Amino acid sequence: MQIERSPLARPFPQLPEIAGVTLRIARARYKEWDRCDLTFAELAEGTAVAGVFTKSACASSEVELGREAVKAGRARALIVNAGNSNAFTGHRGLEAVEQIMAQVAGHIGCPREQVFVSSTGVIGVPLPKDKARVGVEAALHAEPCEWGDAAATIGTTDTFPKGAGASAMIGETRVELAGIIKGSGMIAPDMATMLGYVFTDADVAPAFLQEALERANTATFSCITVDGDTSTSDTVMAFATGKAGNARIESWDSPGADAFAAALADVCRNLAHLVVRDGEGAQKFITIRVSGAASDDSARRIGLSIANSPLVKTAIAGEDANWGRVVMAVGKAGEPADRDRLSIAFGGVWAAKNGLPVDDYDEAPVAAHLKGDEIDIAVDLGLAEGHATVWTCDLTHGYIAINADYRS
Amino acid sequence: MQIERSPLARPFPQLPEIAGVTLRIARARYKEWDRCDLTFAELAEGTAVAGVFTKSACASSEVELGREAVKAGRARALIVNAGNSNAFTGHRGLEAVEQIMAQVAGHIGCPREQVFVSSTGVIGVPLPKDKARVGVEAALHAEPCEWGDAAATIGTTDTFPKGAGASAMIGETRVELAGIIKGSGMIAPDMATMLGYVFTDADVAPAFLQEALERANTATFSCITVDGDTSTSDTVMAFATGKAGNARIESWDSPGADAFAAALADVCRNLAHLVVRDGEGAQKFITIRVSGAASDDSARRIGLSIANSPLVKTAIAGEDANWGRVVMAVGKAGEPADRDRLSIAFGGVWAAKNGLPVDDYDEAPVAAHLKGDEIDIAVDLGLAEGHATVWTCDLTHGYIAINADYRS
Repeated sequence: MQIERSPLARPFPQLPEIAGVTLRIARARYKEWDRCDLTFAELAEGTAVAGVFTKSACASSEVELGREAVKAGRARALIVNAGNSNAFTGHRGLEAVEQIMAQVAGHIGCPREQVFVSSTGVIGVPLPKDKARVGVEAALHAEPCEWGDAAATIGTTDTFPKGAGASAMIGETRVELAGIIKGSGMIAPDMATMLGYVFTDADVAPAFLQEALERANTATFSCITVDGDTSTSDTVMAFATGKAGNARIESWDSPGADAFAAALADVCRNLAHLVVRDGEGAQKFITIRVSGAASDDSARRIGLSIANSPLVKTAIAGEDANWGRVVMAVGKAGEPADRDRLSIAFGGVWAAKNGLPVDDYDEAPVAAHLKGDEIDIAVDLGLAEGHATVWTCDLTHGYIAINADYRS
Repeated sequence: MQIERSPLARPFPQLPEIAGVTLRIARARYKEWDRCDLTFAELAEGTAVAGVFTKSACASSEVELGREAVKAGRARALIVNAGNSNAFTGHRGLEAVEQIMAQVAGHIGCPREQVFVSSTGVIGVPLPKDKARVGVEAALHAEPCEWGDAAATIGTTDTFPKGAGASAMIGETRVELAGIIKGSGMIAPDMATMLGYVFTDADVAPAFLQEALERANTATFSCITVDGDTSTSDTVMAFATGKAGNARIESWDSPGADAFAAALADVCRNLAHLVVRDGEGAQKFITIRVSGAASDDSARRIGLSIANSPLVKTAIAGEDANWGRVVMAVGKAGEPADRDRLSIAFGGVWAAKNGLPVDDYDEAPVAAHLKGDEIDIAVDLGLAEGHATVWTCDLTHGYIAINADYRS
């Protein structure tokens, strides 16, 4: 099946070069396709690494090894395989990953544990070791490529390549950040996400990088959903080469720490939005702002309950300001809520306030808002100060077509 | 939009008369439709009542009042309004329910608290008191009707009327049970469900009736899902008139208690299945058997995670034995699972065992099984003895058409 480019797609941005990062791509031919499907990012000596990974109880070997190896805080290489997730493949899958790690480590001359591997695609088929060996060998010796090439190569059912950049001042030193991501379906990261990578030339201690990444993740990747289905391979990693020469960021007290964290969160948010924009079958990008909840965490869970509700998502697809379905989704979230304090707005217009439909509710501006492709839903719980913003897309015939036709 | 009768529909069964129950229907004209939409069940003096209700934090006044009133254990009447759920309507909605209770209680000559009211339909529109008054008055004086008429009258987007019956021997006395239910979308009862009512002529103490209903509910209504969306009005009630003249069932030690509970669970299971068979857009009825889990409760949650996964549901719609998506849904359930002990079967054929694809997996019989409209998925966790069975339907273009076109 030919999937058309998402109507919500964005052009690939101009991204800065990151000193200490060299990108290469190659063909491992994991599937019968005429495209590169293996990405190799070589990282300068001393690169700090951080990562957040899927909480799935059925995570892939790549995830298990990566989660363990980030603790040491150092990376020299990243390999991403597209077309085969190598998840649920037991010891055979594990052997393939270990082979790749050894092959790359031998080439670079680094400890095996500093080679990180991710795989994405079909579940349950061991990554073929012969194809991996040939693909890695080709990648090791390929010409360096651009961000857009790497972003396209890590994609699978994605309909457009996704990247985002930012910069920050640390003292007098400007540092650059560039990130790429893939993801379209099976998107409901819970404290983790699809495959996403952020690279920076900043000098950042691994522990701080991890902390800043986790903080950014909580407010970005963990606040998006396409279909409520959490992948077995979700991974977001950050690599900091230190080549910018800034005064090293060791903690939140270091000069520039806040600016760097903000830039990192900015890149993560932009990448997360791009995944929603490529949500399978998506026609509308939906922002759900929850306020007045018992806590920020409670607000996020209520937002995700709304964002994951098929009845809310189909209502938006049908351009129907069906706030009754929003009430339903708040009610089922299992979080503190008081029916008689709940207020709901579409596009800034309150449809219900304090548990009652608004008497002089004017549906005309709301109807106009819903015809657009950027939909805004606001929910106020009226309980406390907890707030969160969650992003999702609508649920359309396109989603069914993509997923009922997809062949495993 | 004209919704066609579900291809999984069942003919309405022959149900026994229940001594002490008189059914009547009338037109309140809550919507612009040419059909009865108000159901009145009059119950003999001394009728015991039990109920389980939605856990939604945004439950309707009907649910709040009913939940409180069942504690007294006695009922004389049930009124069901179709076409307006009266949920999220604040004090105006509450007034409408209190008016109905007073009107019926005055007619029968019973305490107001023994009149139970349910409403189903659009959320956020106060039930019009004038229409309710006229409809109730008509129902109070209508000719008695059959089970099939009542089942059709409580329905909204249902494509067929749903009922189930059973009988049980209590000592030498045969008791009869008859149940009706409505539901098609917004179906993900969690310890509660859509609108369902079971009537019996058995003499049962209210406390035991409540206990037996809760136990039946846990294994039936709480094990079905259509779309993962939990309604604001979910209600299941049981009424026992005591007219059969059996030795009263007071506890699990009473003679016939197990037989009665089994018959009640049987009716509940059949009613629950009928709701799934009328799931919006459903083309296939899916049974998910989970075994080897850490506990029965854990098994149920894993089953529901699979049943609620849009990727699993669309794969079944596409007749694809995509067990990788089942792995994903097990992994995201947040329950104890060990990837390397997990086994998955379709139609009795194991596709994966102990964390690995089965080497000589024969896809032909599985493909044939998936072409049918009764799909069986088995998942064994390999951890302990916990097991549960969950039922759902597939996710098709029909679901999108129904819910993106629906107007609130």
